Amino acid sequence: MASPMAYIIWRLPMENDMADVLISNCDVLHVDTFGPRVEAGMDIFIHGQHIERISPHIEGQAIATGVECVDATGLLAMPGLMNTHAHVPMVLFRGLAEDVSVHAWFNDYIFPMESGLTPEDVYWGAMLGMAEMIRAGVTSVADHYFYMDQVAQAVSDSGMRANLVWAVFGHEGVEKLDRTCEFVERWQGKADGRISTWLGPHAPYTCPPEFLRLAAQRAHDLQVGIHIHVSETAEQVTLSLEQHGITPVQMLAETNVLSVPTILGHCLFPTEADIKLLAGAQSGVAHAPKTYLKLGMGTAPLPRYRAAGIPVGTATDGAVSSNTLDILEQIRLMALTQKDAAGDSTVMALSEVLDTAFHGSARVLRMEDKLGDLVEGKLADITLISQDNPAMFPRFNAAANLVYSASSRDVDTVICNGKILMLHKNLLTIDLAQVKREVSMRLDRLNQRDPNRRIATYPGGEARA
Amino acid sequence: MASPMAYIIWRLPMENDMADVLISNCDVLHVDTFGPRVEAGMDIFIHGQHIERISPHIEGQAIATGVECVDATGLLAMPGLMNTHAHVPMVLFRGLAEDVSVHAWFNDYIFPMESGLTPEDVYWGAMLGMAEMIRAGVTSVADHYFYMDQVAQAVSDSGMRANLVWAVFGHEGVEKLDRTCEFVERWQGKADGRISTWLGPHAPYTCPPEFLRLAAQRAHDLQVGIHIHVSETAEQVTLSLEQHGITPVQMLAETNVLSVPTILGHCLFPTEADIKLLAGAQSGVAHAPKTYLKLGMGTAPLPRYRAAGIPVGTATDGAVSSNTLDILEQIRLMALTQKDAAGDSTVMALSEVLDTAFHGSARVLRMEDKLGDLVEGKLADITLISQDNPAMFPRFNAAANLVYSASSRDVDTVICNGKILMLHKNLLTIDLAQVKREVSMRLDRLNQRDPNRRIATYPGGEARA
Repeated sequence: MASPMAYIIWRLPMENDMADVLISNCDVLHVDTFGPRVEAGMDIFIHGQHIERISPHIEGQAIATGVECVDATGLLAMPGLMNTHAHVPMVLFRGLAEDVSVHAWFNDYIFPMESGLTPEDVYWGAMLGMAEMIRAGVTSVADHYFYMDQVAQAVSDSGMRANLVWAVFGHEGVEKLDRTCEFVERWQGKADGRISTWLGPHAPYTCPPEFLRLAAQRAHDLQVGIHIHVSETAEQVTLSLEQHGITPVQMLAETNVLSVPTILGHCLFPTEADIKLLAGAQSGVAHAPKTYLKLGMGTAPLPRYRAAGIPVGTATDGAVSSNTLDILEQIRLMALTQKDAAGDSTVMALSEVLDTAFHGSARVLRMEDKLGDLVEGKLADITLISQDNPAMFPRFNAAANLVYSASSRDVDTVICNGKILMLHKNLLTIDLAQVKREVSMRLDRLNQRDPNRRIATYPGGEARA
Repeated sequence: MASPMAYIIWRLPMENDMADVLISNCDVLHVDTFGPRVEAGMDIFIHGQHIERISPHIEGQAIATGVECVDATGLLAMPGLMNTHAHVPMVLFRGLAEDVSVHAWFNDYIFPMESGLTPEDVYWGAMLGMAEMIRAGVTSVADHYFYMDQVAQAVSDSGMRANLVWAVFGHEGVEKLDRTCEFVERWQGKADGRISTWLGPHAPYTCPPEFLRLAAQRAHDLQVGIHIHVSETAEQVTLSLEQHGITPVQMLAETNVLSVPTILGHCLFPTEADIKLLAGAQSGVAHAPKTYLKLGMGTAPLPRYRAAGIPVGTATDGAVSSNTLDILEQIRLMALTQKDAAGDSTVMALSEVLDTAFHGSARVLRMEDKLGDLVEGKLADITLISQDNPAMFPRFNAAANLVYSASSRDVDTVICNGKILMLHKNLLTIDLAQVKREVSMRLDRLNQRDPNRRIATYPGGEARA
């Protein structure tokens, strides 16, 4: 008889402040070779940072000492959502660059506004963005920005998991690159192992080849990866071919960037040769379709990436292009835009959508052995979402309801690294009212921009004329 | 001095159960020739079915008898959202036809499943869909379905506003058409004037020319309009040209359908000649971009419609293609997909998006003199939405936050025809738990389908081979 044995929790709580957690009576979403499926009425027992057991009726309540019990009746449990490419503190500028061209977006809005940022602005922007992400069920983020000590501090404080890079432009020189290397060493593995650090040369269009080569060498020496923007627009590819005779992806190969692990932000316009290069490298593509729609950029050939075995992960990009840091929204848009681009409603089926969102994203973050599935032994990064809204009824197809009907606002409880960050919609690690007060004090100053004062210049477009 | 005078409410409550309503201290969204703008700290006084006054500090509280006061501090007030083309009771089948082709969607899923519907199923499906819409801030819906007495009863019970048509196929014959005319007469102007009724021949591809001509004649006699599907796919246009030598829109002109007011569902593929015909007719286009993305259909040329003065309204279509009845989501997708289709981030700017959503939709419903703006004298259809989520902070640009960051889950309070349908997230006219129980009892039966038993057959595609 295969009736589940009661599983008695006997361990003492850990010495630090992390109590064990028992999530009771949830529906567990699994995405495996059979496609998405839901196991109803399951308990999840978390010991320390890991999922220790998933089973019906774990009798944790009986020895409640030190075990936090979360009643998850009616909630759907899924792996914590992953944001594989973001500029989190840009939430500070949300709404300030609407309906403008890509070139104006960079040169007249973003780069001038960013020139006025202070480290303290970045800290509070990061906290605001993390509050938004935790509310939306996001537990991991690969962030690419400036003043990254402040972002790392915010990650430490908020309880999220993060891969962090300090963005650097070629014109800032070797000295600045070396300071970003110091950041890598300062924060690697910190915050109970939740933080990993890589290098962040901005893009082939803002870093000359010798700078990329040096960054690749530094990454190799530090044994870390590189998170970089590449082939975001068709025009960037054309410009690279004109200036260098090779595509931006080929430039990354040429400069040894592809010899270390990489997260490639966007990469919408790969050639066949580019795809072969990426398939042979340790590269993952971060996909943020809301930005692509909003800026009229086109989209990435996800079926070709998937066919070549190149990992694709879900991402939000920054909130001045995508307006939110909402991964559920990006998952939905990924599915819809791929069907649209193919003119075929059968492509990017639910099984592929969720495989990309969970397994693809974990591979892009190079955490596939630790994240992306709710199974015993993996890290306890878990998002519990309500299925009560009438838009999620009936429940014929829980996966379809999640991808096409759910809202990030339905997220109820979020756990990262075994610790509860949000319980029944209450943020436990971030005082949102305080964060909003701190951000509010800065708004008048942040809304200033002098187009002649920029942190960098975006090439091409009007600037070429 | 222009300091606002206190406005004293002195009227007695109306004789029926409708108390006057005072919404206090909200931000009012206006969309006018200057684009979107927000007036903060406003009160809205509703007398009977109409907005009577919008001003700061209306002192309604002083004479509270019979006036319901809604504290709307921090909430954004906008015109109630309008759904200009839906099949509301299809929420019953949500999630049952995922990742299938348009032809399979109709012939193997929808038309077979619909053959088993009973009037009672339709009532409870309509109630579920209306609960979803009210929760999402939708106050008006143009519904196109079967067993419309039950949908009308649900409209009456839920408190929404609706334009209703009983869908009819050519093969059902004149007798069935005449029964849909009886429905028009039975419900015209009912439910305190919230219900209007038109005729609903399904589409030129399911109704032969003589049937369309007869429907147009009946509509003319009844002095009502026609709500019909047209030019949903490029293939439909091709088939029409092959079979009739004219486009589906030309067929509507030819059969006099365009001589009465029309709501055209979708109309993605108009020719230049079609656009001229529509510009000279009393036609509006209902636009449901999530369906178009999900089924890989392409999209409609909204800039061309706008340039020709043809009204475009927001719509959800049915929940088996779009999964939700969420107009905020469709507004966002309308903006994003138009930018994408144009490859230009500057098209469909926020002012156009909101003008389409509010004024365009009201024109499609032929209610532009009564709906679409929060101004004194218009009907009191009002949606109040929270701006508290971190994704809507900062508030540099309230319109951008609404279009690109808000979720339908942020809707707090909904008023239709002067009556509160949802107050601080509590549905006042629908017992959602009961609706879910009633729907649940029907799920096993609804999930049956026999592809040989269909209410109609969709032409073209595999069927042509």
